[in-house]
Amino acid sequence: MPKSSSPAGPASTYAEAFPGSTKVCEEQTVSTLAGPVTLRVPMREVALSGGEPPLRLYDTSGPQGQDVREGLPKLRAPWVEPRRAASRAGHAVTQLHFARRGEITPEMEFIALREGLPAEFVRSEVARGRAIIPANINHPELEPMIIGRHFLVKINANIGNSVVSSSIEEEVEKLRWATLWGADTAMDLSTGRHIHETREWILRNSPVPIGTVPIYQALEKVGGRPEDLTWEVYRDTIVEQCEQGVDYFTVHAGVLLRYIPMTAGRVTGIVSRGGSILAKWCLAHHTENFLYTHFRELCEIMRAYDVSFSLGDGLRPGSIADANDEAQFAELRTQGELTKMAWEHDVQVMNEGPGHVPMHLIRENMEKQLAWCSEAPFYTLGPLTTDVAPGYDHITSAIGAAMIGWYGTAMLCYVTPKEHLGLPNRDDVKAGVIAYKIAAHAADLAKGHPRARAWDDALSKARFEFRWEDQFNLSMDPVTARAYHDETLPADGAKVAHFCSMCGPKFCSMELTQQLRAEAQKGMAEKSEEFRKAGEIYVKSAD
Amino acid sequence: MPKSSSPAGPASTYAEAFPGSTKVCEEQTVSTLAGPVTLRVPMREVALSGGEPPLRLYDTSGPQGQDVREGLPKLRAPWVEPRRAASRAGHAVTQLHFARRGEITPEMEFIALREGLPAEFVRSEVARGRAIIPANINHPELEPMIIGRHFLVKINANIGNSVVSSSIEEEVEKLRWATLWGADTAMDLSTGRHIHETREWILRNSPVPIGTVPIYQALEKVGGRPEDLTWEVYRDTIVEQCEQGVDYFTVHAGVLLRYIPMTAGRVTGIVSRGGSILAKWCLAHHTENFLYTHFRELCEIMRAYDVSFSLGDGLRPGSIADANDEAQFAELRTQGELTKMAWEHDVQVMNEGPGHVPMHLIRENMEKQLAWCSEAPFYTLGPLTTDVAPGYDHITSAIGAAMIGWYGTAMLCYVTPKEHLGLPNRDDVKAGVIAYKIAAHAADLAKGHPRARAWDDALSKARFEFRWEDQFNLSMDPVTARAYHDETLPADGAKVAHFCSMCGPKFCSMELTQQLRAEAQKGMAEKSEEFRKAGEIYVKSAD
Repeated sequence: MPKSSSPAGPASTYAEAFPGSTKVCEEQTVSTLAGPVTLRVPMREVALSGGEPPLRLYDTSGPQGQDVREGLPKLRAPWVEPRRAASRAGHAVTQLHFARRGEITPEMEFIALREGLPAEFVRSEVARGRAIIPANINHPELEPMIIGRHFLVKINANIGNSVVSSSIEEEVEKLRWATLWGADTAMDLSTGRHIHETREWILRNSPVPIGTVPIYQALEKVGGRPEDLTWEVYRDTIVEQCEQGVDYFTVHAGVLLRYIPMTAGRVTGIVSRGGSILAKWCLAHHTENFLYTHFRELCEIMRAYDVSFSLGDGLRPGSIADANDEAQFAELRTQGELTKMAWEHDVQVMNEGPGHVPMHLIRENMEKQLAWCSEAPFYTLGPLTTDVAPGYDHITSAIGAAMIGWYGTAMLCYVTPKEHLGLPNRDDVKAGVIAYKIAAHAADLAKGHPRARAWDDALSKARFEFRWEDQFNLSMDPVTARAYHDETLPADGAKVAHFCSMCGPKFCSMELTQQLRAEAQKGMAEKSEEFRKAGEIYVKSAD
Repeated sequence: MPKSSSPAGPASTYAEAFPGSTKVCEEQTVSTLAGPVTLRVPMREVALSGGEPPLRLYDTSGPQGQDVREGLPKLRAPWVEPRRAASRAGHAVTQLHFARRGEITPEMEFIALREGLPAEFVRSEVARGRAIIPANINHPELEPMIIGRHFLVKINANIGNSVVSSSIEEEVEKLRWATLWGADTAMDLSTGRHIHETREWILRNSPVPIGTVPIYQALEKVGGRPEDLTWEVYRDTIVEQCEQGVDYFTVHAGVLLRYIPMTAGRVTGIVSRGGSILAKWCLAHHTENFLYTHFRELCEIMRAYDVSFSLGDGLRPGSIADANDEAQFAELRTQGELTKMAWEHDVQVMNEGPGHVPMHLIRENMEKQLAWCSEAPFYTLGPLTTDVAPGYDHITSAIGAAMIGWYGTAMLCYVTPKEHLGLPNRDDVKAGVIAYKIAAHAADLAKGHPRARAWDDALSKARFEFRWEDQFNLSMDPVTARAYHDETLPADGAKVAHFCSMCGPKFCSMELTQQLRAEAQKGMAEKSEEFRKAGEIYVKSAD
């Protein structure tokens, strides 16, 4: 079988991807319980012309130019060292534990700077379970980030090889590529033979939290036969992954035996891989899901490493026809029950959501999740708002993702153009990440995040003032924006021209507006003068 | 300056674009006031395997394989002939006029078959102004369609050369290309020297309604100087275009002198070409907009040809910062006033809307338009939900378009990836049309249009049953869907395989579901047996 294609693409390094931007660090020394800590929070700084101050944007790309064999610098090493010892002594080391004790961790301080919000607010949101900081104590390379609906909406990119295609090097490169364009977390969904080794390379090179679905590896260990799975195999698998540094686990503990018959009348049955594996196990043994019956043991293991739950939605709808049905909502109620159980163990939790949902049924998903899961962060896959456009599901789902993000979903799992069709290559990963950055940013604007509007305003102002270079450089994808402009008007002079190829010089509305603005001000002054002389009201037209 | 690139693309003819589909006609003879009429309504029929019946979809591609120099067959010629005579005698010949008289025209019958709704319903929606049928009596090549919020959401594609780029042949080919992928109407925004000739070619080859912005041509006639425009030049221009067969005119009659100062504090001023031209004229003469003061004369001319108004929103916001401001809503109120005036003359009307609007401000646009414009159809440009992604504005705007379509907007003007950057080429036109077909269809699903769900269900069922060929053929873009699949799994055997490259054979959730569905039914039967014997309730797990 052929490898998925990996075109070099027009931009590979940070400097090539973001011309006019430099990676800077916002530096601040804060005092913590463990003494003073100097935080260096990465930002993308866009230099502007026309006397405009530079604009700083949230940046997920991590340290640049590192040797993959060396891995990234371990910035959290001094913070997590004491926790490793505490963990060995049986103490909770989760961010939720510290937050509940009133303790602001270095991670919370880092996030406060990153999001532009008070550290105490970060702590309080974590303490009440409304936000999570996925950060395994064994993943020191991580730049801390937060997932919660009062923070910037985050996006996840799925990577990982399957038995059919792709190599380890490709997967690490996909991770770098995804974070370059803005992925806030990545899920390693590898299912091939080198699953442990692939994950090790990914973790040591990841500045963002890494999630996995441990049941995939457990299934490999029992030769791919779901009925041969046992709690013991699963437990050993998660211990292995906790030790490696995985930051969150998708756990399909809500797929209960009695819910499985509810999927019988569906158009697309069960479409979650984890969900169908566990459904098969439950039916084979006619026994309750072992992830549900062993859930508290699972919590105790994850508590010792600060691995967060991403409670899976194994019964999510796989088509418009199946949206918001009995099976889906039955599992969501159980996700809510499990959320509270995890909190009893000081383990952080988010909940996974659909999937395929037409627009008019999206809000109900958010409302039920908030109510039933006690406001734990929601993490949805899209949702896709129609099934008729395979090849364009980054768009069908960006619509649903933007809406549910606005309604309160904290993280959006990206969908690439290859969804339902094949494994994404580099171009697909980029297309998926950018569609989802758009959805997340549109949601941030709609929710009124204090830092969201400045970016739009800076770009709009540059556009109106014909600062073309600034407009390109401020873009989510500067190289593409510039290339599209240059396709019609490549001359350098066009970069300072007061028009573009869309309307040509005579018809440029913005140029006309600039002219008439000057004239209007003159006109208003004259009218004002007339008015003072004649006492007439300056309204001539009909109502 | 170079031409915009026009790659041949992977699919040029209908058969190449839609393998597995054939163009069929739903034929029906209806009796009209002018005698019996045989209607032949075009549909895309998708052949399916697995014993599934073929699925018929709405089709905008028009007659295929015609010689451009001949133009399309004049299917409406016998319907419009008596109206031309009536028009010369001074009688109203608009669809609104006939609808109000209780008369069901052949166009209404055609639309009823096309949308799957009763002809009387079509008539009543037109009669109350809630829908329009843009259909100039001099555009007999037109396949009638309707724009109204109780019908399928429609999309418009903008074509047209500018002085900077593109030729007549390219524009006609862009029209064919846009309607092939699903454009319901097209606006010819040409501004070059050959504006009359370009339009003639477009009209004679267009199966969809053609809209224009006549002020562009009027401006050409006065050498590009807005202050030299006069009512007389404009009037002569619209008569010329009415005679040619243009179906709707964008008229910026709502840009009133007193609204112009309201744009002074905006980030992006006036971004509508027409709006800025008229603003400049108003300020230059310090006189009310001549389109407003001559509006009733305009109505009388358009009434004689059945040209519909698309009341322009010359003061629409050009950035997130300017959304829903005083200037925008002042003009919308005037659009409402003009709507009623046009209706007094039996002229059909829709209203244009924004533009750039963050998600949380979208609904207000729809609500105000419905209230102030007496439920006349709304026709919006996107709206774009963020300004930060030039190069991807088909996506930033598809989000807003889907939402406002769901809220009740009747037609969505597409935005291509080149928006704000340059003139769209073939690929861009296709990308824009498909993003907007997605938005429109997602809106149809959310509104519960009776014909919308069948398409999603057919594709989802094909997906679940691993009928890959059916899944491709049912897609909005079959060739792309197939190409993406084949990129990872090109072998023909993979087209019948019960897995794809995303998860590989062992991890296919749908294959697992099919297995467990059979087992579950067996299991349920056994349990049922046990239950009857033991009297136990079949719920084992905790709540």
